[in-house]
Amino acid sequence: MKINISETSNPHHGAYTRLHPVVASGRELEHEDPEAVIIGGMVLDIHATPSVHANPGTTTPGKVFYMQGGVARNVAECMSKLGAKPYMISALGFDMAGNLLLEQWKTTGLSKEGILKNKDIETPVVCNIFDVNGEVAAGVASVEALEKYLTPDWILRFKSTLLSAPVLMVDANLSGPSLEASCRMAADAGCPIWFEPVSVTKSRRISTIAKYVTFASPNEDELIAMANALSGSGEFHPLKENHKKDNLSTESLFQILKPAVLVLLEKGIKVVLVTLGSSGVFLCSKGGPSCFKIPVAKTNRNNFSGQLYNAVMHNCPPNCYSGFSEHDRSNRVFAVHLPSLPASVVRLTGAGDCLVGGTLSSICAGLDIMQSVSVGIAVAKAAVEVESNVPSAFSLAVIADDAKSVFCHAKVLFHQSML
Amino acid sequence: MKINISETSNPHHGAYTRLHPVVASGRELEHEDPEAVIIGGMVLDIHATPSVHANPGTTTPGKVFYMQGGVARNVAECMSKLGAKPYMISALGFDMAGNLLLEQWKTTGLSKEGILKNKDIETPVVCNIFDVNGEVAAGVASVEALEKYLTPDWILRFKSTLLSAPVLMVDANLSGPSLEASCRMAADAGCPIWFEPVSVTKSRRISTIAKYVTFASPNEDELIAMANALSGSGEFHPLKENHKKDNLSTESLFQILKPAVLVLLEKGIKVVLVTLGSSGVFLCSKGGPSCFKIPVAKTNRNNFSGQLYNAVMHNCPPNCYSGFSEHDRSNRVFAVHLPSLPASVVRLTGAGDCLVGGTLSSICAGLDIMQSVSVGIAVAKAAVEVESNVPSAFSLAVIADDAKSVFCHAKVLFHQSML
Repeated sequence: MKINISETSNPHHGAYTRLHPVVASGRELEHEDPEAVIIGGMVLDIHATPSVHANPGTTTPGKVFYMQGGVARNVAECMSKLGAKPYMISALGFDMAGNLLLEQWKTTGLSKEGILKNKDIETPVVCNIFDVNGEVAAGVASVEALEKYLTPDWILRFKSTLLSAPVLMVDANLSGPSLEASCRMAADAGCPIWFEPVSVTKSRRISTIAKYVTFASPNEDELIAMANALSGSGEFHPLKENHKKDNLSTESLFQILKPAVLVLLEKGIKVVLVTLGSSGVFLCSKGGPSCFKIPVAKTNRNNFSGQLYNAVMHNCPPNCYSGFSEHDRSNRVFAVHLPSLPASVVRLTGAGDCLVGGTLSSICAGLDIMQSVSVGIAVAKAAVEVESNVPSAFSLAVIADDAKSVFCHAKVLFHQSML
Repeated sequence: MKINISETSNPHHGAYTRLHPVVASGRELEHEDPEAVIIGGMVLDIHATPSVHANPGTTTPGKVFYMQGGVARNVAECMSKLGAKPYMISALGFDMAGNLLLEQWKTTGLSKEGILKNKDIETPVVCNIFDVNGEVAAGVASVEALEKYLTPDWILRFKSTLLSAPVLMVDANLSGPSLEASCRMAADAGCPIWFEPVSVTKSRRISTIAKYVTFASPNEDELIAMANALSGSGEFHPLKENHKKDNLSTESLFQILKPAVLVLLEKGIKVVLVTLGSSGVFLCSKGGPSCFKIPVAKTNRNNFSGQLYNAVMHNCPPNCYSGFSEHDRSNRVFAVHLPSLPASVVRLTGAGDCLVGGTLSSICAGLDIMQSVSVGIAVAKAAVEVESNVPSAFSLAVIADDAKSVFCHAKVLFHQSML
């Protein structure tokens, strides 16, 4: 999943990130507080970019970058850099990619007990060759080890960890049976579930688990695929090229996507966060604005999490949307648009995962969903301004200021009966 | 450089490699005998192959392989598995690719003193995505670190090592100044030089060093590029598609390539080995057949090298070509065609480098050039039958038998005055 943040030149960008002291590092924290559980892919991303125009069929001079990736891994790394210590459940081999991912994982300070290591695993790798315009010219994904080795058996070993978790995130790299086992385990533990669709193809795996899911974070194409999978129809169609979201008003875009959003809400998903790249996000839920209140039972506000909580509570006071009627909430849908932030884009990869990581960290710190998504968008902006999927560190002051800017420009789009 | 060996189904292949005891491993040998010096690239090859037909512009499910590559590294590894202990001079970074290459290098038992390690080096990587037919769909080569860090200064540190070397191999990944420094150093030490052209573009670097070079091993396209570079003209043209070598008799192909070969010989290269893939090789030299006699002053016949020497001397008796007149040898050119061997092809990469490695190992053991190239072709055949660039081990019996088959089918093509 990607979020595109509009490219706006920011001449002060270099100085601006350096001037603020870096206050967050997962390594510095040691505690036994409730922490999120993240189940899904740890993937090595190999990105090759030619320096000159490539002739198809030949090897062109250029640069090759290795990046730690995988949706679940990116979310967990992002959360660790925002002061959380999520518990990762994944699978790696002992090959070059697995060794690199595991070495780098150690620097996050997060537990590696949930990461299955097995010599037979071909560590998941995605190898993409870009063209000079930054588009994928050719790409190969070797990620089937996740489906083969990240089994219900392995996942169910960590049931006790889930009992104290404020939230479980699963990415759709898991097989259908593993997604179901994870969701049933979380439901038994009374733990809310965040579903990250990964890709259009894998997003369809929502079909058997929607009733368990509290949050889902599709982009617009994944939203359409999920609505088709859940309704068992092919009635929803991707946005046409001549209809692309950049040419539409926010309201028109929402009108186009609303029927698909309603399918997800009707099938039991409590909160749908539709990511729209440079157009921001739609945050949609059944019920009135109170459905965006603090959604988790267990919160954790030590060190950076506590500082983030205080800064955001100051910058983005809750209850802004308290004027709406809460009457008959079960039959109502509520939707808000939150804008993206101007950014000096270096690379778009990882931004969607940082949006999820920032939002989840804030939810775990006890912020409400509007506040949390505002933080998520601020964190995603920081991600597009660096080469790696997740920035090496975040500045609390910058995140809090950016979150405020998003929060203040949020706009209620829709508040009416679903009937 | 590639050699294609014709694909012939060999149902016994699996059993056939397993039945012969593996007698060679560089690790088992310890000695202080004269050894070849190899200067050039150590490269990580990343090969990604989709499992299904790929749509351009998207990521497709498939497999990603990491292979130790680089022409010079492949040649050195191949020689180590044939009992030689070549001295490698190269440059690596401390990144993922550099760590992998260095770890694997340790398993060869070869010295790593000549390998410059520097944290600023982006270890050379070639990333290729293939299509379902095995052709390169897109590829990026990031190898400029070799030109930047493998400097004359670094190379000249190893002058004393070269004094006892039977032969120096350089690959054309080196910059022009580094190639010249290497060649002058070898010439001062009285050491013959083997030039491996690497690619059509890099093969042109022959232009300033031809007078120093004893052996060169171009494929037909590299031969044309080298002839154009050396003659300062563009008069030589690559084989046309409708003229491709598969449709030509060996004699016709030689007649087409002969003028380019003559340019290389006239400019001072003593032996030109033109590799023709499944069509075998042309071995060309000025002078009569005696120019193929033992070409190096220092030989090394311990352990596997000695066994290889004895087996090949038995299977491929020298002096087969002694009937020719040695009269007026300085103005004559002598050319022999050596055929390829049927093989069960798994992957063609590395075969050309193993041809060079096999030939150089044999030369260092004291075999003559006809015998050595026969061994080289046998070693190249073993290389195409495995996934990696260099097989994990060679069977002496198989190599000796295959070399005999090549040697017995060699055919003199051309023996006439160059005037």
